[in-house]
Amino acid sequence: MFCRIAAGAAAAAVVYEDDATLAFLDSMPMIKGHVLVIPKAHYTDLGEAPAAVLGAVMQTVQRVMRAQRGGLKADGVRLIQSNGAAAGQVVPHLHFHVIPRFDNDGAPRGWAHTEYADDAERDAVAERIRTGL
Amino acid sequence: MFCRIAAGAAAAAVVYEDDATLAFLDSMPMIKGHVLVIPKAHYTDLGEAPAAVLGAVMQTVQRVMRAQRGGLKADGVRLIQSNGAAAGQVVPHLHFHVIPRFDNDGAPRGWAHTEYADDAERDAVAERIRTGL
Repeated sequence: MFCRIAAGAAAAAVVYEDDATLAFLDSMPMIKGHVLVIPKAHYTDLGEAPAAVLGAVMQTVQRVMRAQRGGLKADGVRLIQSNGAAAGQVVPHLHFHVIPRFDNDGAPRGWAHTEYADDAERDAVAERIRTGL
Repeated sequence: MFCRIAAGAAAAAVVYEDDATLAFLDSMPMIKGHVLVIPKAHYTDLGEAPAAVLGAVMQTVQRVMRAQRGGLKADGVRLIQSNGAAAGQVVPHLHFHVIPRFDNDGAPRGWAHTEYADDAERDAVAERIRTGL
């Protein structure tokens, strides 16, 4: 779907476009003004994107953030980016959600969290991550 | 606080470090293995970060993502990055949450969404963003 939007073959409310990236309104916004930023080239997720592509995408993300603050008078901006169905990714084309937030917008700000049983458990988890580096 | 961690003056379970960035476990994880990636230099949020710094941060984010998939056997990875109190930012030092997700981890995948009343409302919001570019 996002490839079709990038190719101009599907409609979208585009807010910004350059050679490498496209930014358009999410049709099911968490908050009105919620933008999706994608690379025009196809990458399934963040793990696959080369540094140059990711640099272009992040520059567009920054540009959209500033425009949400300036143009929409957003009080804050949240970025969400999901990789894999387990993380909530629905469309398998790398995309960043850039969501304008307002002081009393009613959407959640934080999330439920857990705790490590003790430092030993915490250090064991850190070590498992390090072995995957 | 994150400046003190970056300077080695506060303890953290570090999983990766290079000249420009640091990655360490969030002490209040959404899911165990939840990592924070920060630039060592101080920027309040994403709006302020120069492209080179952001490039280094995103490279570390990718590295951590791959390590969570490889080392922790995560099924997916979600990124969250908050700018401003209205977006849920608590510590005013740019940071990316890199959260390993598992098929049955019980944490939310999606979010409540709203809809534009009609295409005219949607187009008006897009236009307001474009004026802020």
